Amino acid sequence: MCYVRKVIYKEKQCIFILITHFPFFFIFIDFFHSFSFSLVLFRDRYINMTQDKCLVDIHTHVYLPEYLELLRKREQVPRVLPPLEEGQDERLIILPDEDKGESTKNGRPVGPAYYDVREKLAFMDKHNIDISVISLANPWIDFLPPTEETFDLARRLNVSMENMCQDPITHGRLYGLGTLPLSSVEGSVAEVERIAALPRMKGVIMGTWGCGKGLDDPALEPLYEAIAKHNLVIFLHPHYGVNLPTSGNMDAGHSLALALGFPFETTYAIARLILSGIFDRVPDLKMLLAHSGGTLPFLAGRIDSCVAHDPAVASKLNHPPSYYLKKLYFDAVIYHATGVKATADFVDPSQMMFGTDHPFFPPLESKDARWMSVDSNLTAIAGAGLDEEIVKGILGRNALKIFNLEMPSK
Amino acid sequence: MCYVRKVIYKEKQCIFILITHFPFFFIFIDFFHSFSFSLVLFRDRYINMTQDKCLVDIHTHVYLPEYLELLRKREQVPRVLPPLEEGQDERLIILPDEDKGESTKNGRPVGPAYYDVREKLAFMDKHNIDISVISLANPWIDFLPPTEETFDLARRLNVSMENMCQDPITHGRLYGLGTLPLSSVEGSVAEVERIAALPRMKGVIMGTWGCGKGLDDPALEPLYEAIAKHNLVIFLHPHYGVNLPTSGNMDAGHSLALALGFPFETTYAIARLILSGIFDRVPDLKMLLAHSGGTLPFLAGRIDSCVAHDPAVASKLNHPPSYYLKKLYFDAVIYHATGVKATADFVDPSQMMFGTDHPFFPPLESKDARWMSVDSNLTAIAGAGLDEEIVKGILGRNALKIFNLEMPSK
Ligand SMILES: [Zn+2]
Ligand SMILES: [Zn+2]
Repeated sequence: MCYVRKVIYKEKQCIFILITHFPFFFIFIDFFHSFSFSLVLFRDRYINMTQDKCLVDIHTHVYLPEYLELLRKREQVPRVLPPLEEGQDERLIILPDEDKGESTKNGRPVGPAYYDVREKLAFMDKHNIDISVISLANPWIDFLPPTEETFDLARRLNVSMENMCQDPITHGRLYGLGTLPLSSVEGSVAEVERIAALPRMKGVIMGTWGCGKGLDDPALEPLYEAIAKHNLVIFLHPHYGVNLPTSGNMDAGHSLALALGFPFETTYAIARLILSGIFDRVPDLKMLLAHSGGTLPFLAGRIDSCVAHDPAVASKLNHPPSYYLKKLYFDAVIYHATGVKATADFVDPSQMMFGTDHPFFPPLESKDARWMSVDSNLTAIAGAGLDEEIVKGILGRNALKIFNLEMPSK
Repeated sequence: MCYVRKVIYKEKQCIFILITHFPFFFIFIDFFHSFSFSLVLFRDRYINMTQDKCLVDIHTHVYLPEYLELLRKREQVPRVLPPLEEGQDERLIILPDEDKGESTKNGRPVGPAYYDVREKLAFMDKHNIDISVISLANPWIDFLPPTEETFDLARRLNVSMENMCQDPITHGRLYGLGTLPLSSVEGSVAEVERIAALPRMKGVIMGTWGCGKGLDDPALEPLYEAIAKHNLVIFLHPHYGVNLPTSGNMDAGHSLALALGFPFETTYAIARLILSGIFDRVPDLKMLLAHSGGTLPFLAGRIDSCVAHDPAVASKLNHPPSYYLKKLYFDAVIYHATGVKATADFVDPSQMMFGTDHPFFPPLESKDARWMSVDSNLTAIAGAGLDEEIVKGILGRNALKIFNLEMPSK
């Protein structure tokens, strides 16, 4: 009995099981324990929630044509491979060592949802999303050397994204986050100046590598200062994972690298950044953490406690680590109500913003269906027991303020 | 300005600052953002809480004399080194690579709190703890080869712990968790049979290595079955961390290995265990997760979502991963209210139990003080907005039921 089938077919089957399988009613009971069932329970609530309110997606990616072109030319990860069979999609291989795993080596299909603005708009329409703040998907251009060619590519990518956001067919529904040539701090600072001059660009997306030595690298401080000076937001997004030894006992595919490696990476990178004291020196730095901060809202107490018991580390900071963490922004891409509640308990919920992680985690079956990945995040927000006004904030109003966005005229 | 000093001296200084430093009142405001201040706010509440109720500590360690003897003889980590100067304590080096870090290579002082039952009782008295369920501290005897000598040591350790719990000076306030010679499944199954026959032993403590290949190793199934058959609890505790690359930018000492490496290790090990399907095959296995499950209550939604989108992985399970997670037990050693709330939201709070992690995280200053590490966990429980009856459960009643303990006559 595989629960995925149940999830996919839940809408058709719920009533069917009740009518025809009464003796097997216990099968239905299983739904109570799966997040899929909560989608049914909260269905009306989150659809109402998105119909009459402003919905802004601040975690949504594109693979710009210039970037796909680069990935097609490469012979190592990250790269784009040709279709396995004629008529199929190209295939994207981006995660470290993904090319070596039996179940991951063929990559994931990269169709128009990854690059076509019409697909982005169609996805937004399907889910009642008013505005998307789009960003290049990982691993950006972190892997390119600090050359003029790289700087030029960054420039072209950002202009291309600005143009996508200005495309008349978008009716003002798109804003963008820029990409930096991070292997050079100087090149990145120069690019920040250009991004700040592009009217629809509201920040930058960054991985956790910095220019190769992590976010706590003192060499990055001029970059942080430039970003803060222009009131841009850093969207901090994982890509590299942490080194989780494979068990040899089973092949878990991408699942645990994505489910755990990503949030662990974010958590560790930000903990290091905070211990470096950067937020004492550049207190105005606005940073948005992907996936509700990895695990930081949950682990903040333990981090405070471990640091407090290590005076050599604590003495470098003006405040406990959680003080700085509470000033950051968190998306609400955490897929269950417990995570939304914990984040909203840890930070002021005015610092939380809805996101989808589109075009990742597409529906497994019908292309026309609403996306389970989106609905589980909406359900989580609806089911977190938060006040109506707080919910409205997380769904869109907070993003309007934090990114300084204008609502498009519907 | 170092906030640790503030934490340590908070009680003396709070009023002092208010009276003498009124122009610097903003310094006091900082306390609002630190967990230390909440200790002051909730002080009366948690002291009342522990005075008239049953308080059971299920996460508390000892280094039995036989174990210290072994560690003294060793020439590599884990080991005990002689005092740096005469009259000082011996020094314990247990974490991987701890001997290589500049600020960690001298280890931590290992005084009587680590082995003397009188010190355990004094610690319990100071914090109004009625019962402690003691366990050998990490890394147990995982590093020993599968020989008769190792099996014999396990046997002696468990008898020694049983004797400590039966010592008349404890007045029935101690129960124990046994240690297994995990490099051999057969040896461990035999030891489980012996542990089950020791009246004050209520379970076993285990790391995440299993017999060297992780908890999802199919070879371990006979061991899980034996433990479940005797209705013993596995206390799953981290030791090895995950490989977090050092930044080279700063020396964070033990702090991040403990704050993050430990909970990441627990999270990854249990996620793998669940994906192995063991809880479909041995559904009665009782497992208690250290440090509130690492990060599992927060990441469960993301794990469910990533697994649901990877049918090859999901199809091996009868339910989503969170279904199995919700059947496990969680300590409340998470040091802030957000973590307690999240755990109590994720699982039925009747599956949560108070713990201290004694003798780790001792007070930095006065030996006579209450321990900040204990008070931050009590404060977290008091401040989590839970019903009185739920709090009573977490503080002690749940442990009485789950471990089948008897309240000592006071
Ligand atoms: Zn993303
Ligand atoms: Zn412990």
